[in-house]
Parts: sequence; structure tokens; C-alpha cells
Amino acid sequence: MTPAPAGAYPRAAVIVVGTELVAGVRVDTNGAEVAGALAAAGYIATRREILPDEVEILAERIAALVDSHELVVVTGGLGPTHDDVTRQAAAAALGLPLGTDSVIEARLQPVLARHRIPDAAAQVLRQAHVLEGARILMPERGTAPGQLVPTAHGHLVLLPGPPHELRPMLAEALRSLGRGARAEPRVIGCVGIAESDAQLTAQKVLAPHPGIGLTVLARPALVDIVLIDEGVTSDELDLAAREIAEAIGDACYSTSGAMLAQAVIERASSRRVTLSLAESCTGGLIAAALTSVPGASSVFLGSVVTYADDMKRELLGVQEETLRDRGAVSGETAREMASGVRELTGADVALAVTGIAGPAGGSTAKPVGTVWFAVASGTDVTSERCHFSGDREIVRARATATALDLLRRALPPPETGPA
Amino acid sequence: MTPAPAGAYPRAAVIVVGTELVAGVRVDTNGAEVAGALAAAGYIATRREILPDEVEILAERIAALVDSHELVVVTGGLGPTHDDVTRQAAAAALGLPLGTDSVIEARLQPVLARHRIPDAAAQVLRQAHVLEGARILMPERGTAPGQLVPTAHGHLVLLPGPPHELRPMLAEALRSLGRGARAEPRVIGCVGIAESDAQLTAQKVLAPHPGIGLTVLARPALVDIVLIDEGVTSDELDLAAREIAEAIGDACYSTSGAMLAQAVIERASSRRVTLSLAESCTGGLIAAALTSVPGASSVFLGSVVTYADDMKRELLGVQEETLRDRGAVSGETAREMASGVRELTGADVALAVTGIAGPAGGSTAKPVGTVWFAVASGTDVTSERCHFSGDREIVRARATATALDLLRRALPPPETGPA
Repeated sequence: MTPAPAGAYPRAAVIVVGTELVAGVRVDTNGAEVAGALAAAGYIATRREILPDEVEILAERIAALVDSHELVVVTGGLGPTHDDVTRQAAAAALGLPLGTDSVIEARLQPVLARHRIPDAAAQVLRQAHVLEGARILMPERGTAPGQLVPTAHGHLVLLPGPPHELRPMLAEALRSLGRGARAEPRVIGCVGIAESDAQLTAQKVLAPHPGIGLTVLARPALVDIVLIDEGVTSDELDLAAREIAEAIGDACYSTSGAMLAQAVIERASSRRVTLSLAESCTGGLIAAALTSVPGASSVFLGSVVTYADDMKRELLGVQEETLRDRGAVSGETAREMASGVRELTGADVALAVTGIAGPAGGSTAKPVGTVWFAVASGTDVTSERCHFSGDREIVRARATATALDLLRRALPPPETGPA
Repeated sequence: MTPAPAGAYPRAAVIVVGTELVAGVRVDTNGAEVAGALAAAGYIATRREILPDEVEILAERIAALVDSHELVVVTGGLGPTHDDVTRQAAAAALGLPLGTDSVIEARLQPVLARHRIPDAAAQVLRQAHVLEGARILMPERGTAPGQLVPTAHGHLVLLPGPPHELRPMLAEALRSLGRGARAEPRVIGCVGIAESDAQLTAQKVLAPHPGIGLTVLARPALVDIVLIDEGVTSDELDLAAREIAEAIGDACYSTSGAMLAQAVIERASSRRVTLSLAESCTGGLIAAALTSVPGASSVFLGSVVTYADDMKRELLGVQEETLRDRGAVSGETAREMASGVRELTGADVALAVTGIAGPAGGSTAKPVGTVWFAVASGTDVTSERCHFSGDREIVRARATATALDLLRRALPPPETGPA
């Protein structure tokens, strides 16, 4: 992506603290969330560093980044355990003393009572240690307060690691800094298109639009085209997003950053069409994706996850002969599953999926990654076969995305264009 | 966590490239995966940086980290699109020229033919550019090759971003570097215990075991205790893990790093007990977790996701009066759902969950986060109520972990101790 014009926005850096994150025992999601919030608040995040729970390293990097960035946000290391050293590291980096805040200390008293082990008390009380001159960001939930500390070039913000504690405190810190906002990135969701085709199509559309940054992201079966404000208006971003969606055509399911499942629920809701599912190899993932959308209950009736063949027969009415002659992974079985679950649930549109996610269960005729889909709608039942490469997790993710896309295509688009 | 003894293992740094990752439009998972593989191969990953697709910044940071680390691994930015600049940045950082590799060039020819847009050809061919002296890491799938380049203090490894392309190349690079392995971290999985209680229990057990690093990680309803080899034998790590598991008691579900779902499947498999589910607010997440375990099909029969009340009645036989008088979110409904799905599927043990995930649907008597669980097993049907704080996603995650734990507790433990 083209670099942003120098000096257009203040620079921010994010430090994520946790030896377990550096070591790869756990995946960090806070860094991306904080960076997104910073972008929306008018900062350009130019750097993210994931560092171990070691006072010296943290202090050195905080000092270096505070020197070159208007805003430095540190997440993690504010809790009560022995490896929570962010407070000490920040104090060392800025040369500020740590005091004890009496309001937080009082607030921690009921927490102390809940602990099974008496030694935990002293550790819990470390959470009341605050840098001199810091504004305290009170926790809505949880016990560790955040801190907003003035620096020579701007501010340092310390936030706890748990996402539900971090979010409201970050919002409060950004509000109190009163930054002018950048336009939110526009995310154009596409399914079933090559990453480089999506990129070249978007680049052509963007040629006459300077000031819009472009990034193209591929996930199993999905491609996101992301447009970033580098000095344009919100309307210009919207116009560019609409033009790209038109150039991409039917493979585009959203210009609003909606997830594919959300696009399906929106289409179904706008037409009052009810949905149900029969899942085999996806094992509940399609239902979980649809029900992650708030309000899904108005159109999604339910899913039958028939992992065992007996359940395909007994619950969905798949014929014994079909299973015997064609096999559980076949177009016939998928069609009978779709019809069966549609009848069982009374849904307007039903989708079924049956396949071999691996690692075992493949054969020469039906290798691992073979997945059959069927859609029952009106008097029609259609089916199609796909072959997905990748391991069990990727095959299941691709099958889920493909199933959601088939549902989307089976539903009439809402009158206002792509959701 | 206590820092590793200096010089015990060679130091590695990981650079993850992608403006979309820095900007928070997308979450990086490669960094953690690469760091984990490095740890297993005997490196200590001391730093991870997430950097934008900008040649100058990348070149500067590659040069700085190559200078202070025996191994630097860069992921991303090797593809065919305009923002793939890792090759140029590495060439600038090491002062090496880029040549074109004829084998890769030939290999790219069929790919060119598949592109809809002719301009893509020149971009695709950039993937054949290779640093002088680099060993090429051939892609099994995908088109972008990786590169293993000698440096003054060790090696620089360039890997593509897509995880399924990266994995085999990283394995090949580490094999060819022939590093002695560190013991894999031991992960002790716990459920329903406070993070700081878990930490203090582990610390007490570890006091007589120097050379074992400790990290404690909390996710919704789950706590992982991670033991890291900082100069002990594999047997000593195993012994410490067993001692901690014993001190934690029944809240410990695994000392082998198994996911909770895997522990459930292992218990069920070892006793040949079949399982089924009736899910409402979790919407398929429990089934998706169980079916993520390879071989789940030997014990997991299926799940009925009854999102609509009609389905609870018609499919599971929940009484109309129960739904009317007690409501869909009640112990009675949960128990009838569990009995109903057990009868429907013929499973030995059935679990049902019904609750209010939010954001809408709450009331004073039944606020958002109220979730009822029931387990039907033998002639018993038991139920219990939980209240989870957090947003829709967290409530669903907590309900899923709690449901898996109830299934685990309903199954006799395998004879060999915790799975």
C-alpha cells in the first residue's frame, strides 16, 4: 500500500506485552484492535512490537518509541501476577515515581476477599500503583486500572490485557485526547475471486482517486479489499468503494465491512426468508457463523449437525440406499439432507453440506477436501461439489465460507444493492 | 515470567509484514505460529515486530535485527501484488543483488495462464526474484517461494504470508539449520479457576524447580498454565506439570496442551460413550469445537441447533407449557432439551444449553448473560444456571467452555489420569 503523506496524521505505536505472545504460545488480538481504534481516532499506527514480560526490555522500548511517536499505547502487564511489570517499566522509561492510589486501593478490597490463597492479597494491591501525573482510567469490570501519562511529545497510555477491560479505557483515553477523526477504512468483502485479480481491479478503479490507500487481504475462500483514508473525504471513500464493488460484480458481498454471515442474515431479513441448515463436515461452524450476527434469530430457525450417518437417516430422512450406493459424501446425500432439514424445520431455504475434512476418511474417488453442498428452495434442490486443499481446519473454513456464499446467492438481493 | 538464562539458546526475532496488520484491519496469527516453531527448534524468540509494507522501514528493521539476532524470520510481502516489497527490503538491508531464478520462473508459467487480467503477468513474475546466495524454499502449494539467506551472525529467512504456504517452508528452513531442540512448552489446561489462584498454586509447586519458566494465560472461562524449558530436561517438565495438575485438582483438564474439546473427546472415546447436543444460544459453537478434533466422529453423533422455539418443541419435544410458563431460558427447558436430544439421537450422554447472549433479549429476571445448562446421562437429568458478563461473543465463548466442562465432568476419567 502507498505510504500515507508524511505528517498528515500524528504517529502512534502499539506495544503488546506478554512473553507467551512473543513465544507463540498464544495469539495476540489486542494489537490489531488498538491499532484500529487509533486509526479511527486520527492516528497512523506505524509500528507494533510484541515484547516479553521483562522490565529492562520494556523500559528500553517504551523510552525509544515515546521519543518518536505522539502516542504510545501499551497493552498487558497491569494485572496482579508476578510477570505484570508494565507499571515498573513505564516508570523507569519516563523517570517518574510510582505512588499508590487510595481510590483504587479501596476498590480492590472486595476482590481480596474472594481469593482462596492469602498470598494473592499483596499482589492484587500492586494494581493500585500509579505513575506520578497519570490520569487514571477506571475499570468498568475487572480490577486493573489503565493510566494516561503525558510525555515530552504527547502521551503514553497503559491498558490491561483482557479485551473487555481494555476497550472502554482506550475509548476514554482517546476521548480525553480529543483527536480529530480519520474516515474509517472501507472494507469490500469478496468471495470466490483470486487475490491478484481483486487487487488489479481495485487499482484500476482507484487510479483517478489519489489519497486512497489500498490493501488486499485473502482468507480461505474470501478476499477483502480495504480502502484507507490518506487525505480524502468520507464520501470519496464511499464512491470508490461502490465503483470497485460494481467492477467486481457478483463476487462482492458487502461494501460496509459486514461479514459474509451478516450479508446472508441481512438479505434473508429484508425479504423475510427463513433459513435452516444440515451440517456434516462443518460440524456446526455455519450455524455458529450465522448466529454470531445479533438478531439472527429472526430468520435463522436452526441447524441439524448430523455427524453420524444414522442421524442423517433418522433425523433428515436420507434414504438407506442413497447412503449405501452413493455414500454419505455425495450430491444425492447432500440434496436429501437439504430437503430433509427444510421439511423438518419448515424453513424457506435450507442448505446442506457433507464432505471429508480429513485428516482421515479420504479415498482415491473422494479425496480429503471433497465437499458436497445442496440448497433446497421453493421446489428446487440444487447441488454442487467442491474440492478444497489444506488441512482439516482450512477445509472446514473454506466449506463454511462457500456454504454462506451459496445461501447468499440463493436469496434475492436487498433493494439497496450489496449489503 | 523469569527471563531465560542469557546465552542458553540462540536468539531469534520475527518480523511480520503487512500494513493491514499494523493498521489493525486484520489480526496476525503467523507471528505466534512462527515463534512457536522457533522455540521448538531451540531458539528463544525475544522480539516480534509488525511493520508496514514500506521498503525503507522494512530494510531498516531487517538490518537492525539481523545485527542482534542469530535468526531473523520475515513473513509476508512475497506475493505478486504492488505492496509485496519484502524481497527488495531484504536485498537493501543485506546489500545483496536480486536475480531471477529460472526454475521458479518456469514454474510460474501455468499460473500466468489462469489470470483474467493480462497486467497480472509482470507482477506474478516478481515472485521469481531471489537474493544472491539464498537457498530457495520451494512452495508445495501457492506460487511464492521462500528464501534462506546467510548473514554475518546467522541467517535471514523470508517466508510467504499464507499459513499453509509458510508452514512447510519454515520446517524445511529449520531442518536445514539443524538446530538442537528445546523441550516443547507444557500447557496445563484449567477451567473454572481464578487466574491468580492458578498462578500462585503453580509458583508454589515450581519453587524447588529452577530452570522452568511460568506463564499463566486467561481466556473466557479457561486458564492455561504454561511451563517453559529454560534449562531442564523434558522429564523434569513433565514431573512439574503432573505436580501442578495434582495441586489444581479437578479444575485441571489436561497436562498435554489438549484443548478442552479434545479432553472431552478423549474421555468419551476411552469409555466408548457417545455424545449429542442441543444448542440454543451457543448456536453450533459447542458442536464446532467438538468436531474440530480429528476422530470426533467415533463418539460425537450430532447436535440440534434449535434457535427458534418451535424447533425446541417440534424436534426436541420440549412441552408447550414449559416454554410458556418457564420460558425458553429456564432449567426446565434445558432439561427437556437434553432429554429430547438424547432420545432423538440415542446418545449415551446429551448436553443442552439455552440462554441470552445479547445484546437484546434480556430482562430484569433474566438479564443478558443468563445461561442454563442440562446434562442427560443414564436416568439422570441435571441442570445448572450461570451468569456470564461480557458481550455476545464473550457470553457465547464462556457458555461453550462451560458446556464442554460439564460434558467432561459427566464422563468417567480415562484410567491414565487427566488427558
